[in-house]
Amino acid sequence: MSRDRKPIGVFDSGIGGLTVVKRLFNTLPNEDIIYFGDTARVPYGSKSNETVIEYAIQNTRLLLEYNVKAVVVACNTVSAVAIPVLKEKFDIPVIDMIGPGSNYAIKESLSNNIGVIGTRATINNKAYSKALLNINSELKVTERACPLFVPLAEEGLIEHPATYAIAEDYLRDFISNDIDALILGCTHYPILAPVIQKVVGNKVKLIDSGVAAAGEIKKILIEAGVLSKSSSPGKHTFLVSDIPVQFKFIAELFFGHDIGEVKKVEIN
Amino acid sequence: MSRDRKPIGVFDSGIGGLTVVKRLFNTLPNEDIIYFGDTARVPYGSKSNETVIEYAIQNTRLLLEYNVKAVVVACNTVSAVAIPVLKEKFDIPVIDMIGPGSNYAIKESLSNNIGVIGTRATINNKAYSKALLNINSELKVTERACPLFVPLAEEGLIEHPATYAIAEDYLRDFISNDIDALILGCTHYPILAPVIQKVVGNKVKLIDSGVAAAGEIKKILIEAGVLSKSSSPGKHTFLVSDIPVQFKFIAELFFGHDIGEVKKVEIN
Repeated sequence: MSRDRKPIGVFDSGIGGLTVVKRLFNTLPNEDIIYFGDTARVPYGSKSNETVIEYAIQNTRLLLEYNVKAVVVACNTVSAVAIPVLKEKFDIPVIDMIGPGSNYAIKESLSNNIGVIGTRATINNKAYSKALLNINSELKVTERACPLFVPLAEEGLIEHPATYAIAEDYLRDFISNDIDALILGCTHYPILAPVIQKVVGNKVKLIDSGVAAAGEIKKILIEAGVLSKSSSPGKHTFLVSDIPVQFKFIAELFFGHDIGEVKKVEIN
Repeated sequence: MSRDRKPIGVFDSGIGGLTVVKRLFNTLPNEDIIYFGDTARVPYGSKSNETVIEYAIQNTRLLLEYNVKAVVVACNTVSAVAIPVLKEKFDIPVIDMIGPGSNYAIKESLSNNIGVIGTRATINNKAYSKALLNINSELKVTERACPLFVPLAEEGLIEHPATYAIAEDYLRDFISNDIDALILGCTHYPILAPVIQKVVGNKVKLIDSGVAAAGEIKKILIEAGVLSKSSSPGKHTFLVSDIPVQFKFIAELFFGHDIGEVKKVEIN
């Protein structure tokens, strides 16, 4: 198989990465894409670096069995802790969320005052602030873990008073800090974007790292000369580690169309 | 080693089972107890029966390596789906949460009108209503999944307006249904008991299955003649599947004293 016809691999701890894969479908409509959601071991955001790194290696190995030409880590927690290990261990391009998201935020911010929200693991590792300050050491960066946003998004409590009460608690400091860009540093968070936008106000631009990552992978594929030359729509394959029923249901709600068979695979 | 000196094994998906183990420490102060928290794969409540059963078998096998004389399944989700498999597969007493909790609720209810709350897996499996109606088919049972109670309890948001807003949503039907006993069918829920009690009112007795299960295991050990004859305090050992730091921190907050070394073990 010529390299350009190989699929792109994408993995996440569960359903959060679907917000990223939706961007990929739009940006790269002719690429075959294989998505793996580790639904048996979800969530990663509250687990230790050691465990997350181990799972990330297993997930990448699984995708390599499907002959992928690149791997997109559609999970900020994994991006925050496992990218150096994955890049060292595997001989294909590995695209994370942190780098592209940081560049996008810097481009959008006029005040150089940027906020970041994410899981406890992402924030504790200071993944975004390190990446942002590495690009521009003059930036002011404020970070905050929002651990309840994932379960609230998964329960679909978008317009619930409880979500507003929790968002107001989590985001209070950003309002007084006068940021003008807020990085949604977890792939679940775009689902809560309407609430987050209302709480932080319209002057703050919300940065969806998935948008930036989709642009980044396209650039990398072009530079490597392996962008698909096909003009027909790419094939999309979904794999999960728990039984597929609930994943298929949520994914089809999210995409608005049938996604075909979702296959359960063994992971360890 | 004589059988009475063997330890009791307890497992849960994470920290929820600590509410049960606290009851065991009080009821059986002279027993050695080994607790395993599957913190790498937590939570179980949103996962499929197949995956939960597989994990339950692995966890029981792990405890048997420590030569336990009985296993307490300190997790309602596992109790709801995996008990028949565990009882068939393993030749030691297996104590679940559902049976003891149901008996306790029936004893406490005067109106025979009982409510049950739990994870989605526990409620979807109708574990409590089947057990309750099996004992007394005249009962009226109302069940409701409360999936956000676990993350709220784990975040320690006990007195937060968001917790009240969510509790009012979840528990609304119980108030109009006029129940007089509410089974806390998830080991995390006793942590939120003050909020739950306020929302359902003082006429409703909250049923903590952990209390009932502690009584049940004592009865079983006495009947089998393997209750510890030691008069010195039992040894308590804690094992986890993710790194121990956060577990140790939360457990010590919960117990109010040092719990010694928490050991990480491999599970699969």
